[in-house]
Amino acid sequence: MIRVIQLIVDNTSGVLSRISGLFSRRGYNIESITAGITSDPRFTRITIVTSGDEDILEQIEKQVAKLIDVRDIRVLKPGESVYRELVLFKVGVGADKRQSLVTICDVFRAKIVDITKDSIIIELTGDQPKINAFIEMLNDYKILEIARTGIAGLRRGSEGVVEIN
Amino acid sequence: MIRVIQLIVDNTSGVLSRISGLFSRRGYNIESITAGITSDPRFTRITIVTSGDEDILEQIEKQVAKLIDVRDIRVLKPGESVYRELVLFKVGVGADKRQSLVTICDVFRAKIVDITKDSIIIELTGDQPKINAFIEMLNDYKILEIARTGIAGLRRGSEGVVEIN
Repeated sequence: MIRVIQLIVDNTSGVLSRISGLFSRRGYNIESITAGITSDPRFTRITIVTSGDEDILEQIEKQVAKLIDVRDIRVLKPGESVYRELVLFKVGVGADKRQSLVTICDVFRAKIVDITKDSIIIELTGDQPKINAFIEMLNDYKILEIARTGIAGLRRGSEGVVEIN
Repeated sequence: MIRVIQLIVDNTSGVLSRISGLFSRRGYNIESITAGITSDPRFTRITIVTSGDEDILEQIEKQVAKLIDVRDIRVLKPGESVYRELVLFKVGVGADKRQSLVTICDVFRAKIVDITKDSIIIELTGDQPKINAFIEMLNDYKILEIARTGIAGLRRGSEGVVEIN
């Protein structure tokens, strides 16, 4: 089971190390992690995608909430939330197969951001199922490199805004 | 000075903690960090945006390269590389100002991914200058929340592909 957890933490040096240290000491799995500034420079938003059974996920939430840097912790539930990830693909492709690759990109609304005689860099954004479906379609091509940002997410609607004073 | 460093590391538990620990112990700045799987499940790609003067940046590279989990380290230079970040904005906006916000989104090719009577969630992708310009335009509106993924990057062209055996 996959769970997306969103933390608002103090923007102090070492906070990321303490959080990732907790996961590694206890053997919790991190599928992806992103950390970036929020609209308030005192705080950093960290989005962690983790996996495990219900017991493990509950433990993770409790342990993370105990860390002193953590101001807010919430689970971004599917349906109530918007998740998005950005992925860059470098694909080895020459003139012969380029048109068919561009057609696939059009269907997925992926952007071509770099092109040479023998390679293309594609930018795709979406949720996990869309990205997996695109990777499936790329199996007929030579993927040279993939760079994924990991998930950023927000709750839908104007409810649930984190306010810290 | 901002520098984007890309690491290929062993996909072991604790690797992220060791890397972020090194930054925090030495007081190096992390502007953003993203970690995600690569096309080879044995390895994780970590992209770190860091800042400092030339001496500090050189130190960072040397220190990080010494870590045993780190298989490859490279600086993604502007011009030679494609950087992209995904940002979700939740903006408080009612019917009166909605149309003018949608117009701004159109110009920036930002997508509206959720809408309620009093809020909109916007998805924007781009490099740093584009994202900063968009945030500038949003100053006239009420930004409720921002979630940024941090930067993912690849070198342009088919050169410079990381191969690990």
